[in-house]
Amino acid sequence: MSEFDIIRQIFSGTAIDRQDVIKGIGDDCALLSPASGKQLAISMDTLISGVHFPAATSAQDIGYKSLAVNLSDLAAMGAEPAWASLAISLPEVNHAWLEQFMQGFMQLASQYNVALIGGDTTCGALSISITVIGYVESGRALRRDQAAEADAIFVTGTIGDARAGLESLKSGHTVTPQIAYCIERLNRPVPRIEAGRIISQYSRCAIDLSDGLLSDLKHICEASGLGADIDLDKLPLSDELQHCLQGQINWSLILNAGDDYELCFTVAADKTDTIQQALQQAGIMCTQIGSMRHQPGIRCYHEAKLITDLKPAGYDHFEK
Amino acid sequence: MSEFDIIRQIFSGTAIDRQDVIKGIGDDCALLSPASGKQLAISMDTLISGVHFPAATSAQDIGYKSLAVNLSDLAAMGAEPAWASLAISLPEVNHAWLEQFMQGFMQLASQYNVALIGGDTTCGALSISITVIGYVESGRALRRDQAAEADAIFVTGTIGDARAGLESLKSGHTVTPQIAYCIERLNRPVPRIEAGRIISQYSRCAIDLSDGLLSDLKHICEASGLGADIDLDKLPLSDELQHCLQGQINWSLILNAGDDYELCFTVAADKTDTIQQALQQAGIMCTQIGSMRHQPGIRCYHEAKLITDLKPAGYDHFEK
Repeated sequence: MSEFDIIRQIFSGTAIDRQDVIKGIGDDCALLSPASGKQLAISMDTLISGVHFPAATSAQDIGYKSLAVNLSDLAAMGAEPAWASLAISLPEVNHAWLEQFMQGFMQLASQYNVALIGGDTTCGALSISITVIGYVESGRALRRDQAAEADAIFVTGTIGDARAGLESLKSGHTVTPQIAYCIERLNRPVPRIEAGRIISQYSRCAIDLSDGLLSDLKHICEASGLGADIDLDKLPLSDELQHCLQGQINWSLILNAGDDYELCFTVAADKTDTIQQALQQAGIMCTQIGSMRHQPGIRCYHEAKLITDLKPAGYDHFEK
Repeated sequence: MSEFDIIRQIFSGTAIDRQDVIKGIGDDCALLSPASGKQLAISMDTLISGVHFPAATSAQDIGYKSLAVNLSDLAAMGAEPAWASLAISLPEVNHAWLEQFMQGFMQLASQYNVALIGGDTTCGALSISITVIGYVESGRALRRDQAAEADAIFVTGTIGDARAGLESLKSGHTVTPQIAYCIERLNRPVPRIEAGRIISQYSRCAIDLSDGLLSDLKHICEASGLGADIDLDKLPLSDELQHCLQGQINWSLILNAGDDYELCFTVAADKTDTIQQALQQAGIMCTQIGSMRHQPGIRCYHEAKLITDLKPAGYDHFEK
């Protein structure tokens, strides 16, 4: 089976009909006719086996997660997903693996009406690079540099679950229903597309939680030239995570837990009720965890006391 | 040095000012405001060390070539380059290497006014994935499926040089000026952007020569539901290549020589003079090498005799 046959085969049956795709897979480039009057948001993320997902992760979960973490970047801009391009490196041709990978990928692509418009397959260590493009109403994108002093800081959903899932996979402990929930959160993150769309109606500032709350919030602080106060007692932890932790909460681990792909956003203090209601009506939980401050740096409080030993330790690919 | 520092450092000083870039590197996504009334052409290619370039290739040449082969896909659609996104996997942080890589990359990016709008750096085996996006006038893209029976088949420039460069690197022969020329063609392919723009004024059909003339022309034949007759005696070979070959022309090697990144295009028989003149005025050499035929398959003639043992053997990444 040749490379061309593989491309044809794994990408066949992946057609999502979109009027803005003039020509999809099968030429030197895809041809797109973007909707007029809108801006485009574009992001590219690479996932490497053993780094961005445990090497034992199923092909279907890898396919799903690869697209999910890219869509999460669109969510963090308040964008509506439109197109994706997929480059896979594989050590060898493995049909069953590729089919399952594409099943996971397409499950999410169908859900968000994302057309797969091209890509590349090469022989090498397992890695996946995806470029996603979506639409944003002009001037309404969510950015890291748009937080204002005294803004309330929110996160969607709960945090720390994915990290707990990863730790339990590493430890090889018996998989309880609570651990299974956390592993599902690790392997099948839900990109917060709807949340991003709603938030962009009331705010200009968000980021997605890929590296951990402290690291990601730090990006907002630095880009906006501000600092933040966080109330640890407000951090939304799932019942499942609390069950796994059995009352032993390690704040540093929670604050530096990556891979949750929830959104962290800021909103003017007088809009907190409105935005909470709007998200709640869409079935999306959100929690105020702190406020933006003039003073640079992030300060974390537990029972109103400053905890001084908490530092960002987001995953660094090159740190030894 | 953290991953974030690396990203900041290697991508700093890489700003190409473009009015259609609202926000470049530094957020979850880049924000673009595409020119209205135009279509977008988008392509994504991965280059793997030891596969797409010899492992000993200099960082600067790798940076240049990675962007060049991607721009070549835009050229093959007749597109005008606009934006690029870059994902690099590296076994370790190496500043000097990254700086030189970016020098090679930016040399070409500046030349074609391509804004680097984002990307990703990860730790892994050396590989580079790039997504490029360009503009095409609506309905004027060059496509593989638009050849017509009796169209003349042309190639720009000369073919076979890059392959000769690769072979001589493998053999470790003394580098004569002619071999140096061929190695330069391998490491520094010129994306035929101007040629593509000119061709799109007279034709609707082109492909770039990445895998070899037979393989790439076969794509045009199959997509257009036609065949082709090729006159081997017309194939444009550089003086340097002919010097290297010393009269021993291996047609199969020439016809399956990849990495030239010239354009192969077809044009109606009554427009061959016009298109040749237009290209010539822009300093671009082109040569008619055959014609599109109703009968499927590609037939190669040498001194008017059919040569029957020539088959496409474009590089197949997964063939053992």
